[in-house]
Order: sequence, then C-alpha cells, then structure tokens
Amino acid sequence: MSHPSARTRVVREPQRAVYDRATIYEILDEGFICHVGFAIDGQPYVIPTSYGRKDDMLYIHGSAASRMLRHANSGVPVCVTVTLLDGLVLARSIFNHSMNYRSVVVLGTAFAIEGVDEKLAALHALSEHILSGRWKDARQPNEQELKATTVLRLPIEEFSAKVRQGQPVDDEEDYSFSTWAGVIPLDMVAATPLSDSRLLEGISLPEYAKKYSRK
Amino acid sequence: MSHPSARTRVVREPQRAVYDRATIYEILDEGFICHVGFAIDGQPYVIPTSYGRKDDMLYIHGSAASRMLRHANSGVPVCVTVTLLDGLVLARSIFNHSMNYRSVVVLGTAFAIEGVDEKLAALHALSEHILSGRWKDARQPNEQELKATTVLRLPIEEFSAKVRQGQPVDDEEDYSFSTWAGVIPLDMVAATPLSDSRLLEGISLPEYAKKYSRK
Repeated sequence: MSHPSARTRVVREPQRAVYDRATIYEILDEGFICHVGFAIDGQPYVIPTSYGRKDDMLYIHGSAASRMLRHANSGVPVCVTVTLLDGLVLARSIFNHSMNYRSVVVLGTAFAIEGVDEKLAALHALSEHILSGRWKDARQPNEQELKATTVLRLPIEEFSAKVRQGQPVDDEEDYSFSTWAGVIPLDMVAATPLSDSRLLEGISLPEYAKKYSRK
Repeated sequence: MSHPSARTRVVREPQRAVYDRATIYEILDEGFICHVGFAIDGQPYVIPTSYGRKDDMLYIHGSAASRMLRHANSGVPVCVTVTLLDGLVLARSIFNHSMNYRSVVVLGTAFAIEGVDEKLAALHALSEHILSGRWKDARQPNEQELKATTVLRLPIEEFSAKVRQGQPVDDEEDYSFSTWAGVIPLDMVAATPLSDSRLLEGISLPEYAKKYSRK
C-alpha cells in the first residue's frame, strides 16, 4: 500500500507529517497506551487501552473494546492513535503557541484473535512491549484466563505520523515582542515502585521494574 | 440528562465507573490533551488535540479537526476522551496485570464557534486551562488569526469516567506465588524550561512557567 493513503494524508501542518515505518515504529514502541476509535451507528467512541507491537502487527488489549466487539463478530474498522507529548511550546503570540508531540494514526480493520496459540503469543508481545522481563516472572495465563481475554490484531498497513519538535516559530515581527518564549519539556516519569502490602517476605524489586523508562 | 446514558454506561469493570461531575471535572482539569473521535463514512478517526474546560463546556482546539470539519458544516457527532495514566500495576498473574488510570469520555455534538467574541473567550479559556497566566503575557490574537483558528464547543452532557487506583488485585491462590507485585507510579513531569534562542535580553522565566505541574 502506498503511503500515505488519501485517508491518512496529513492535511493540517503537512510539514509535520512523517510516513516512514522506522519513525512510526519508534513512536509506537515508546508508547504503550493507544486510543482506539470505532463507530456504532455513526456515533464514534474513543477508548484508551494498552497495546503492543511485533513486526508489522499491532496487538490491542480488548478489555476496553467489549462495546465494540459486541457489535461486530467480524472485523471492525478502527483508528488506533498513539500520542507522545514532549512539551509545551510558548511563542510570543498566542496564535503560535503549540505543543511538541509525536503521534501515530493507524487505520484498518481489527480482528479478535481466536486461536489459543496466537492469543498467547500476542499477550506475550503486549506484555513484553509494556514491561520487558515481566512475563517470565509472573504466573502465566491459564486456559480460562485466555478465554476471558480479548486481544485484537491490527496490521500496520495504513498509517501516518505527525511530529512537532523544537522551539516556537513566531511571526518575524513578533520576535521584538517582550515576553518569555521557549519550551517547557514534558515527559512521563516513573516514581519509586510501591510494593504490594501482601508481598511475600524476601522478594525484592526486580531489575526490570527499577527506573522504568520508555526511552 | 440522566447519567450514565446507555451509550456512556461502563460495560467492562463497572466497579471502576464514575459518573459524578465533580470527579469528571477534576480529571478534565488535570489533563489538557484529548483524543477526538469522529467518523466519516463509517471510518473512525482519532486525533489528539488540546482542550480547555469552562463550566459545563469543553473547548477543543480545531486545528486537528480540519478533516472532520471539511465534512460537516453543522454539528459533528464526536467522542472526546481524556486519559491520565497513573501507573503500571504488576500482579502475580499476567491476567491481573493492569494500569492505574483515570479517563473520561464525553459524547455529543461539537459545533465550530463562529462569533468572534465567543471564539476569543474560548481561546482564552483554552489557554488558561493549559497554562494559567500565559494569555496576558503573550501577544493577543488579531482578527486574521481568529479567523484562521477553529475552536469547537462541546457541552458536557453525556459522559462517564473510569478510574482504577491502588495495588494489584490477585486471585486469592496467587498470593503465594513468588514474584514481586506492586505499582510503578507514572506521572507527567516538566523539566527545566528551555529559552528560545531569539529571546530578548533581560527577559526571565515567568513564575507560571516554573515548575509546571497539572496537580
């Protein structure tokens, strides 16, 4: 499929558009919460949920999608959007205020994974995507849990990204306007992990849970 | 309107549902990036953009909505979702892994604000919502900029929230499973602001831009 499609071509601020897979995968791999959009009778719904990526496939945790899935046994047209917020951009003019961000939009038809082996592999990919190393340390899903879990599969075929980085861009005549201008960088930061109150004695925090970061 | 409507009633994990305005406004006021969903010919689109709240009204920056607005001069059915991520929840079983989060979904019909006075008021609300104090310090929008800016108005009438907080909840028999369990708290944190390279001499960082926090 050619990139972008008419549906994913960035209309506003086209200079911010990015269509290459490498950049898009970098954004998808830094994030782990997506917003899934679907429509029922013309009414759109947007639900946050976790996801993982493996190769050219997105795996979307379906717990949030029950409303959607009740309405469609076959594939569902979805839009999956991942947004990373990098900062507030303070320009001299209100009009040129902006944000630094990186966002990806993937359009396509999502299917619920039916086979047990494929579902287990998808859950593994999702788990590793969010916190690599956790899967092998936790109790694995049993048959009943697998049945109770919905995972959607969405091929990454039709997509685009938008990226804005760096300092404000003001109108030339505004650079003499006397106000502070610049960027307030924002980042998602992990604080010290909090042990569960029922933690067994002698168990310490595993390496993979220390200093959690997506970078 | 009664809360929740059939459309905003939380189906999955109903114990996490919140329907009172006070909680919902707290979530909306801590966030400032929403994901707007709309559908064109059955295909959903989800676009991140900034928003503000004033009283029972959401103001949504329309730059991202150009695709949507080209398709609808009158009101557009939208879903606006705001998600705050508070942490990773590591349970003993993979199945009970979760996230701490607070999310709000608002359904309704969004209208582009036409009147200049109302648009200016909406932009002011939006600016104050994101960074209180900035509006009066920056160059105000002129007539041309106001024309070039789209702001959508969405009454907060049909909504719900989902909130998950606290430690993992494991199956009783899993509490003897020997692995670390607990929460990795996550938060959006501001780093030291970066001055624009063309900053006028003698201008220092304003108070409102120091230690930016949404809490």
